[in-house]
Amino acid sequence: MERLPGFRDFYPEPLPTKDAWSADARIHLFDRWRTTARRYGFREYDGPPLEPLELYTAKSGEEIVGQLYNFTDKGDRSVAMRPEMTPTLARMVAAHQRNYPKPIKWFSIPQLFRYERQQKGRLREHFQLNADVFGETDPGIDAELIALLIDVLRSVGLTSDDFVVRLSSRNAWQEFHAARGGKPETAYAFFQVIDKIERESEDESAKKLSALGFALDDVRAFIQAAEPTNELASILSNLTSRGLGDYVKIDYNVIRGLAYYTGPVFEAFDRKYNFRAIAGGGRYDNLVKLISGGKTDLPALGFGMGDVVLMELLRECGRLPAFTSGVEVYCLIEDESLRGASLGWIQQLRHAGWAVEYSAVASKPDKQFKRAMDLKAAWVTQIHREDANLVRLREVSTKLEQNLPRAEALSRLKASRTHDSSTP
Amino acid sequence: MERLPGFRDFYPEPLPTKDAWSADARIHLFDRWRTTARRYGFREYDGPPLEPLELYTAKSGEEIVGQLYNFTDKGDRSVAMRPEMTPTLARMVAAHQRNYPKPIKWFSIPQLFRYERQQKGRLREHFQLNADVFGETDPGIDAELIALLIDVLRSVGLTSDDFVVRLSSRNAWQEFHAARGGKPETAYAFFQVIDKIERESEDESAKKLSALGFALDDVRAFIQAAEPTNELASILSNLTSRGLGDYVKIDYNVIRGLAYYTGPVFEAFDRKYNFRAIAGGGRYDNLVKLISGGKTDLPALGFGMGDVVLMELLRECGRLPAFTSGVEVYCLIEDESLRGASLGWIQQLRHAGWAVEYSAVASKPDKQFKRAMDLKAAWVTQIHREDANLVRLREVSTKLEQNLPRAEALSRLKASRTHDSSTP
Repeated sequence: MERLPGFRDFYPEPLPTKDAWSADARIHLFDRWRTTARRYGFREYDGPPLEPLELYTAKSGEEIVGQLYNFTDKGDRSVAMRPEMTPTLARMVAAHQRNYPKPIKWFSIPQLFRYERQQKGRLREHFQLNADVFGETDPGIDAELIALLIDVLRSVGLTSDDFVVRLSSRNAWQEFHAARGGKPETAYAFFQVIDKIERESEDESAKKLSALGFALDDVRAFIQAAEPTNELASILSNLTSRGLGDYVKIDYNVIRGLAYYTGPVFEAFDRKYNFRAIAGGGRYDNLVKLISGGKTDLPALGFGMGDVVLMELLRECGRLPAFTSGVEVYCLIEDESLRGASLGWIQQLRHAGWAVEYSAVASKPDKQFKRAMDLKAAWVTQIHREDANLVRLREVSTKLEQNLPRAEALSRLKASRTHDSSTP
Repeated sequence: MERLPGFRDFYPEPLPTKDAWSADARIHLFDRWRTTARRYGFREYDGPPLEPLELYTAKSGEEIVGQLYNFTDKGDRSVAMRPEMTPTLARMVAAHQRNYPKPIKWFSIPQLFRYERQQKGRLREHFQLNADVFGETDPGIDAELIALLIDVLRSVGLTSDDFVVRLSSRNAWQEFHAARGGKPETAYAFFQVIDKIERESEDESAKKLSALGFALDDVRAFIQAAEPTNELASILSNLTSRGLGDYVKIDYNVIRGLAYYTGPVFEAFDRKYNFRAIAGGGRYDNLVKLISGGKTDLPALGFGMGDVVLMELLRECGRLPAFTSGVEVYCLIEDESLRGASLGWIQQLRHAGWAVEYSAVASKPDKQFKRAMDLKAAWVTQIHREDANLVRLREVSTKLEQNLPRAEALSRLKASRTHDSSTP
């Protein structure tokens, strides 16, 4: 009985095989994502993993269906496992935005799905940090969102030597397009050519541009100049004030594929460009209106950061911590006559917040001690044979051992935690 | 554009409508689930939300399909959105159990799905804490699992006045069945009658029992006596040693519906029996063998606890905390000439671990201060007009205000956090 192709199992470390996915690394990543988003004042939300198919076709047209994990449910509804979070979020915000002061700053960590027939071996699900802001047009909020993106990557140990945010704008390309006589109805086709310009051959790009009335050299020169628009200059200056100037550069090669972007857009890449984009996002000021059928009109912006590329990068850079069992205290039960008192002591330790392991069955003390070492417990404790209120407490790192009344042992443990604490 | 029937959106508080689901309450619940499971030495894992249909029919037969959210995918595979986690877990453990010392103690918080045509308005998804143990037959480990269940409920503020774990055993009923001449092949049909005995009419139960060769009075007397078997007495004594005796009682009305249970089984209920079961579980010593096609044979036990009933109970008992924005420090920007320095100060605060909010656009100071109060920020800070290294720091609760160099302000904040800290 195998799992479906393109889906992942997440195992606790040490991993059973070299290519297994680590549940511990995922917990670590999600924890950093959450912690950093909260420092930026973002609130967490979630929506259904299954949505009406129409939520996606309304925005992206019928051609999107070929990439969706969609089906007809038992109630004869056309449904799809969510390929992205933004339409769900736009629906939720459109329905209840009046309840929240602006700007609305929200994040989520959804699992997303796709089904492409042709690509064997490719994943059909991944997790993505989504951070979005609604109700603010000032570029200062674009800068706030990009600062969050940068700090999320810094929080997992990456530096400006490891990654860069390439900043661009649909508005800059819009102006380029209009200034050269492009008609509004060809703008999106033009954007699509720009979006592929790094991946397609020169000849192909030149041909497509020419068909739309543009010259490749002209486009190249515009990208080469990398002249920030006022809006982008304002974002850069804001990020520089935060000390984050080294993490971002103007790069008009970036324009983003999705139809709904309207203003500044950006993508984060590893500096060596060995991987696909780590994250991408931008403004989408018209989407809430579209999703709500015109009932709600709110400017919006956001980004998505997947777990797969980021995890590959962290592994390559060696920035993942060593994961252990999480067990802090091992309670050794010297013989079965002490089991009852030991269980009471274990309960006290856990109640005080400690992660405690012990042998649930009779076992030789040296075997138990070995297990404590395998679990990398920082402390080993056991009930005193003559007095159940006395416990022996051994700090594994120093090999120091003391016999203490239970209450004092708890204080001793607590003091060690306060001392070690790295929280601000 | 509406969401699908039976699915939930989770909004940040304050909630937009009375019946909206709270993302904050969900985060709170998951956090307590995780924290408590880790204290018991359980490690987190996860598997795919979509599995081959066969994973469920192999164990429960074709009749289960009527309740599943199943469909045929684009690759012509019969698949189902997972209705429970145990088969996925059994598959994962069977594949790689050799990698992990026993007992394997794992937990997960999957979203689970079902599709029942007939019940309108009923939820089609929920989240469930799943905690399972593999590789140990001693009742001491059953007690460890039940202790975890009890402490998980205690961790969200429930007491022995609020809930009770009803403890029973398939073995006790197996013996009852065999002692009265029941043949092995009728045992499961007999268990099914017991499972429904509290919900069905006396006549109905009596008729069904009689058809299998049993008398309702005999069954009733057995339940009434509530005489613990040796195995259950051992579990009770273990829990009593932990000080958890008040949370559990023998109740042979409980037998659990699923076919795969083999030994002790249990369900947690609110004391007033106003709700469905809060949690349920037990031993399933044969499932790993079944799922692995006989390749791996491991004793196992586990429980599941859903978010929906528990949340209803917590709301009724008033045990949910008041949720706020999470913003700790609000940075006031007195005028736009101070924005650059303020952004630098905000970055320092966030880097030091503080959740900071500010106005991304020019805004009157009194409006900003009102926003800080709405967010329930504990601190308000601003850059000094004459010296960007000086900041004003106001503690909202005491209204005390100080002008301090940035580094000292950070120390002052840190001292307040260490002082407030309730971690052990």
